[in-house]
Amino acid sequence: MSKQQKTAITPTRVDNFPEWYQQVIKAADMAENAPVRGCMIIKPYGYAVWENMQRVFDDRIKAEGVQNAYFPLLIPLEFISREAEHVDGFAKECAVVTHHRLEKGEKGLQPAESAKLEEPYVIRPTSETIIGDAMSRWIQSYRDLPLKLNQWANVMRWEMRTRMFLRTSEFLWQEGHNAFETAEEAREDALKMLRVYADFAENTLAMPVIVGEKTEDERFPGADATYTIEAMMQDGKALQAGTSHDLGQNFARSMGIRFQGRDGSEAYAHTTSWGISTRLIGGMIMTHGDDDGMIMPPKVAPIHVAIIPVLREDSDAAQILDYCERLSLRLKELGLRVQLDTSDRRTPDKMWDAVKKGVPLRVEIGGREVEAESLTCVRRDLGRESKANYSLEDFTGKVQMLLDEVQAELLRRAKAFRDSRIRDVSSLAEVKALYIEESAAQGAQNGFACADVSILSDPGFEALCKEFSLTPRCLPFEDKGRKVLIGKAY
Amino acid sequence: MSKQQKTAITPTRVDNFPEWYQQVIKAADMAENAPVRGCMIIKPYGYAVWENMQRVFDDRIKAEGVQNAYFPLLIPLEFISREAEHVDGFAKECAVVTHHRLEKGEKGLQPAESAKLEEPYVIRPTSETIIGDAMSRWIQSYRDLPLKLNQWANVMRWEMRTRMFLRTSEFLWQEGHNAFETAEEAREDALKMLRVYADFAENTLAMPVIVGEKTEDERFPGADATYTIEAMMQDGKALQAGTSHDLGQNFARSMGIRFQGRDGSEAYAHTTSWGISTRLIGGMIMTHGDDDGMIMPPKVAPIHVAIIPVLREDSDAAQILDYCERLSLRLKELGLRVQLDTSDRRTPDKMWDAVKKGVPLRVEIGGREVEAESLTCVRRDLGRESKANYSLEDFTGKVQMLLDEVQAELLRRAKAFRDSRIRDVSSLAEVKALYIEESAAQGAQNGFACADVSILSDPGFEALCKEFSLTPRCLPFEDKGRKVLIGKAY
Repeated sequence: MSKQQKTAITPTRVDNFPEWYQQVIKAADMAENAPVRGCMIIKPYGYAVWENMQRVFDDRIKAEGVQNAYFPLLIPLEFISREAEHVDGFAKECAVVTHHRLEKGEKGLQPAESAKLEEPYVIRPTSETIIGDAMSRWIQSYRDLPLKLNQWANVMRWEMRTRMFLRTSEFLWQEGHNAFETAEEAREDALKMLRVYADFAENTLAMPVIVGEKTEDERFPGADATYTIEAMMQDGKALQAGTSHDLGQNFARSMGIRFQGRDGSEAYAHTTSWGISTRLIGGMIMTHGDDDGMIMPPKVAPIHVAIIPVLREDSDAAQILDYCERLSLRLKELGLRVQLDTSDRRTPDKMWDAVKKGVPLRVEIGGREVEAESLTCVRRDLGRESKANYSLEDFTGKVQMLLDEVQAELLRRAKAFRDSRIRDVSSLAEVKALYIEESAAQGAQNGFACADVSILSDPGFEALCKEFSLTPRCLPFEDKGRKVLIGKAY
Repeated sequence: MSKQQKTAITPTRVDNFPEWYQQVIKAADMAENAPVRGCMIIKPYGYAVWENMQRVFDDRIKAEGVQNAYFPLLIPLEFISREAEHVDGFAKECAVVTHHRLEKGEKGLQPAESAKLEEPYVIRPTSETIIGDAMSRWIQSYRDLPLKLNQWANVMRWEMRTRMFLRTSEFLWQEGHNAFETAEEAREDALKMLRVYADFAENTLAMPVIVGEKTEDERFPGADATYTIEAMMQDGKALQAGTSHDLGQNFARSMGIRFQGRDGSEAYAHTTSWGISTRLIGGMIMTHGDDDGMIMPPKVAPIHVAIIPVLREDSDAAQILDYCERLSLRLKELGLRVQLDTSDRRTPDKMWDAVKKGVPLRVEIGGREVEAESLTCVRRDLGRESKANYSLEDFTGKVQMLLDEVQAELLRRAKAFRDSRIRDVSSLAEVKALYIEESAAQGAQNGFACADVSILSDPGFEALCKEFSLTPRCLPFEDKGRKVLIGKAY
């Protein structure tokens, strides 16, 4: 590989983390900004990550008895307005559909005045109201409960400051909506789905998370309680990676989800909602990427193994390619996702491409490897130092273990990084000192402060948060509500 | 089963086909109309069919080298207006987004005047333009070709007369968009994807189709050629079940998809697009359903086997349920989708439910079956006459074959029905006579007329089509463009 080029990504994480993030996405060919305000195009390599995430997660929620369905994109204004907090939370960022036809005008195409809708619609920012309305028809008796629904869908929240994957006006997500007889069941369900998220983040995405409850100000508009998984990015900022809401009877009341109970009396259902989105892809990049680009956790990597034929002038190209093909087939038979790069690019370009895309294992095959029925393998997470030669037999026997090791190493690293950047503080002054010190140190990353929950009612807390762009991220469950985690956030 | 009730669905197909269709959807709990103009809610049982279709089809197109991606929901007006025929085709049915915020007004929530978009957007009715714009950036050289992209997405076409699955303002589909170096490659690709559709319709959905080319008037707006698969419903009407378009260089020119060719000169790419949608679910209902409800082709059936415990007062319920559980597990291990109905509904209700949902195999387990380690199985397509007793061993060995037989029988029936209703005609008068006679006969279903292609230029053809609501469906490939198929259509 080129020696001038010390890192594949410019700038590095330390030099300019936000710009490094954009460049990693570009170098891995995962996404690009769209010619539509605040929207992105998810390119094939980025979308493949989402498909892999969907497959794992969809199986997981189906095992919980959740059924997929599909509800309309457009929501009547009247629905949105029924739950007071909900409308306050979303009205300011709704895309509104007002016409149903275009016509040619003086300045070109324009909405046709004659096709103005009597009642405009908003593009769903989330679907509690329209799914709640359906539940009001589908649920008649306690026998119809629990009802657990999910949809994989696009949603729209008109964002002014956008960043690919993390915050875009349109994004893809799953939104689960469950309904129960009792308050206890709903609360337990919200907590259970949070645990499913935490398990998914840690064991599928190798992204360690802190589970806890949001403070009142940070709740979902219309929820009684919002639970969250919070991850720490490599710049020390927090990423809210998934939330699960106990909606109590708020949406049941506003949408009329009533049922006849076991004692014959009528009651409102207790509902929950829970969602994760394409934002998680951004979170994985900022958790695992390094100055050479992305590192994909094997469980969702679009390519597990990149096979690169190393051809020299005196090589027997046909023989090498034939050997590569055989290897590719063997690995595919093991259920692995394999890319054999037979393009006419230069070998170093192929290698860098695999590096920047974060393919967990890179296999190089030259004349020597063919002769010895062997291969050379480099782990993306450990780099050149992990370069090792394996016999073909040995490698096919070990490859799954190697991938498991990469997966474990990514989680281990991310956990170590995060844990080293959570500092206990006991006063506002200490929080302040922490963030001043952090900001002063060159290239320093921030982290989380962990304080006694009483800090939330300290009269100076709000001003301090404003000064350093901090927010209370959550009350971690492991501290039993006695502590609050504070940090800057995406 | 109840003897008063001769059929599970009222009205029957002969009595009122359109109403029968709605009632089948309702009885199978597949979908319902949404409280949003022209939109539907796809309920879990209906959505599961779509998921099964997606899985099969997605694997199929990936084997063709197609990559999934995701493009924005909103399309700038300027894009839509670039291709003249395209804008004429879609402008009259576009949902237009004009504002990005709501505010409280006198009459409640309304679009905020201060948040009016300078340039409105339309919700995608299809994505040739926005994907073409991306291709213009992604394609620089012949080395970047072919480029094959697909997205699974929702689209919106404001329809005035809607019908669940068949024609709704919002629907789900896949849209493939491929780009090539040469006109020949594009044409071949459009034809290849059409063959993929035909194979999918016949071998996965058991829906026989006629493949051919659309006449000029019926082409996709902006296409050089539109190829189609046309199915016949049980009322004799045609359903356009999937289309594949050779777009020539029309969209490449309007969206600027240029590349440097092998000889160094610059050229416009040749593109294709191809789509199938949730409309296919409606097509399956109208192809396979009978007067007792839906019949699901096993390859996409959400439930392959419904197991119904038959409990009498003197039954050993625990023993029967335990046996049912064991059977369910055995079948799931074979990779089958199984539903064991342990609800407290009456046994006949459970049976009718499986019938109306079109579950291919219904298995009944009572005390006798448990004692003999056997089961009673009824095929949905053949009804009570197929009722047979199998030993448990025998059944698990044969069940996949039984499902294959149901799949084959559905296709055989649909083909026989269709073929009996295609009549050769040699003049306008014969077409007219055919449709008058059809209309007069009580409960008669229409069918297709097959005429020499010269009929299209007959001066009376248009008026005749108007009189009987006929359209030329396609020029079937098997007749090498010499004949045209005519019929009423959904």
